Amino acid sequence: MRRAIVLARRGPRTGGNPRVGCVLLAPDGTTLSEGWHRGAGTPHAEIDALSHLPAGGARGATAVVTLEPCNHWGRTGPCSHALVDAGVARVVYAIDDPGGVSAHGARYLVAHGVAVTAGVLAAEAEALDHEWLVAMRRGRPWTIAKLAMSLDGRGAAADGSSQWITSPASRAHAHRMRADVDGILVGLGTVLQDDPSLTARDEHGALLPHQPVPVVLGHPAQVPADARIRRTHPGGVLTADVPRGLFASAGRGGTAQREAGGSGATRHEADPAGAADAGQRRLRAVLARLFAPPHDMRLVLVEGGPRTTTAFLTAGLVDEVHAYLAPRLIGGPRTVVGDIGVTSIDAARELTTLEITRLGPDILWRARVEEQ
Amino acid sequence: MRRAIVLARRGPRTGGNPRVGCVLLAPDGTTLSEGWHRGAGTPHAEIDALSHLPAGGARGATAVVTLEPCNHWGRTGPCSHALVDAGVARVVYAIDDPGGVSAHGARYLVAHGVAVTAGVLAAEAEALDHEWLVAMRRGRPWTIAKLAMSLDGRGAAADGSSQWITSPASRAHAHRMRADVDGILVGLGTVLQDDPSLTARDEHGALLPHQPVPVVLGHPAQVPADARIRRTHPGGVLTADVPRGLFASAGRGGTAQREAGGSGATRHEADPAGAADAGQRRLRAVLARLFAPPHDMRLVLVEGGPRTTTAFLTAGLVDEVHAYLAPRLIGGPRTVVGDIGVTSIDAARELTTLEITRLGPDILWRARVEEQ
Repeated sequence: MRRAIVLARRGPRTGGNPRVGCVLLAPDGTTLSEGWHRGAGTPHAEIDALSHLPAGGARGATAVVTLEPCNHWGRTGPCSHALVDAGVARVVYAIDDPGGVSAHGARYLVAHGVAVTAGVLAAEAEALDHEWLVAMRRGRPWTIAKLAMSLDGRGAAADGSSQWITSPASRAHAHRMRADVDGILVGLGTVLQDDPSLTARDEHGALLPHQPVPVVLGHPAQVPADARIRRTHPGGVLTADVPRGLFASAGRGGTAQREAGGSGATRHEADPAGAADAGQRRLRAVLARLFAPPHDMRLVLVEGGPRTTTAFLTAGLVDEVHAYLAPRLIGGPRTVVGDIGVTSIDAARELTTLEITRLGPDILWRARVEEQ
Repeated sequence: MRRAIVLARRGPRTGGNPRVGCVLLAPDGTTLSEGWHRGAGTPHAEIDALSHLPAGGARGATAVVTLEPCNHWGRTGPCSHALVDAGVARVVYAIDDPGGVSAHGARYLVAHGVAVTAGVLAAEAEALDHEWLVAMRRGRPWTIAKLAMSLDGRGAAADGSSQWITSPASRAHAHRMRADVDGILVGLGTVLQDDPSLTARDEHGALLPHQPVPVVLGHPAQVPADARIRRTHPGGVLTADVPRGLFASAGRGGTAQREAGGSGATRHEADPAGAADAGQRRLRAVLARLFAPPHDMRLVLVEGGPRTTTAFLTAGLVDEVHAYLAPRLIGGPRTVVGDIGVTSIDAARELTTLEITRLGPDILWRARVEEQ
């Protein structure tokens, strides 16, 4: 199973499918074949492993897979059927398929006389594709909020200037991160003011093989025809029309706009809590849409601006934080995180550190947001 | 000299005197004796080293000292005279005495026939007591601003609750740090609201041997008779009467109070820039007073609250930052750093990292503030 997990890691994290590895063992324990999944539209790990063997070569074998073999006809046939057809005698897997159309492969295997063992190295396999599994269980993508800020939590100076708060090493890392997600979500204000390309590039400026789909929180007509993202993403730009006034008020109380700053007009709702709930529902609907076909997004990077980041945090829709912290102090009104509805210290949004890395003079603090 | 620097490190950083080490070498290069300075009122390093030898034992010797031997009658006699009287033939030192009454020891030595070599391992010796040297050159203490905050730069939740933002490991470290400074400076608001003891304690709550002198920015009558610092510091509490309105305006513009928050009434000056200058002058005067006898402070920790921290940063009077960052998000108005007068990103206050350490779940980011 450890080997299967290693194989699984070779696959991409994007594209809607999990990373899966498979090892086929002969009855004497020797390895017959290995396989892993290379992304949506390519063979699953089990099929990949079987494909390296001649007909009948897997008869009586044990298949060790990181995930319960699938049981549905998608772009590829069900792995449970293929394993039975190949004469595999035993299947050992780590974690159950988290549900949906592909589930119940184990049931099919048992019904067809295959011995099945589940839960082997489950924790390790869960860690391998935690984000995908949680996304599948929840029916919405795993969201990562990128915070690029000074040590004192500012994303820009008082006049709005922000290039560059973080170091070239941090920006290069953030670009590589973009290549590792399905979608990259920004507020309309960011598009109108910064006109970003939202591409994933290497240190020489060349496009990386995988590009995230840009998602703008706004009406399609609000994204200018000559906006850079329209040129840099010939595959198209997704828009999700969340009214800005509603959206801004997702940060409860009256200070969110001034604090988060810089994203245009400020509107206050008469009923902030109600507006926050409405904003949260709208954001949840946006994420559900990105999760569903044809988008099938499992990993989405929320890149701001501060109003968007604050709204997602307030709604409890941020799963992970990537904070790029630069060794400088800026002060003033333009905090990256505005009012997220934390009134008392006991209600602070707790983080669990995944990694603290130095990137040139900066640090990257990667952490999961604890569920509340 | 390397040995002398190692010896110097044994001394305390507090008490007004530098850390100095001395090695006495025989003409054949063997070590005759070693000494170091144990703090104000105790023998200087040279005298300490000489004291271990019998009369005449240093005749013809070379004294290797990290700092130019002093030349004045303080609580101890001038080291330059003592070295001449002991018959030392040669003095090698790293850095010149930064001035004041003790300077010109080298001149005295040369005038009395002692060969003098200066500048040996000067950079290393400078690093050893950089803070003390800078304080001496400027005539004000080296100031360290302690920032205890969430990852997003907040020092408290919206309701003012802040216990505890940082982890026990961070708080223990901050206590050890208090034992390493001469004074600990807070705003009156902190005393009135938090009623801190401002003592340096170990992890069991026991007082550490060295206690910093508490300095409160306020009129003596404003510090309540039953304030905890009056009980915990029987040696007395210093006060420096900087008018709060003036002081608050040291953060230019109108948002500092709301942002820095939590320290009582808000007042706006008609002329913020003028008020900022006045606030800066007052803060400089406070530091000059702490530097001068009888206080002789060389290291002062500025522990907030946010209004005080912001005022010192705005005035360019923070030399070092100790940021304790906790893995949580709070958002809202109570930023630890308010408006520090940075209007454009180019004017950000740049930091040079000294150390990034994990303290339990938190990190401590220690950095010098670049001079502007």
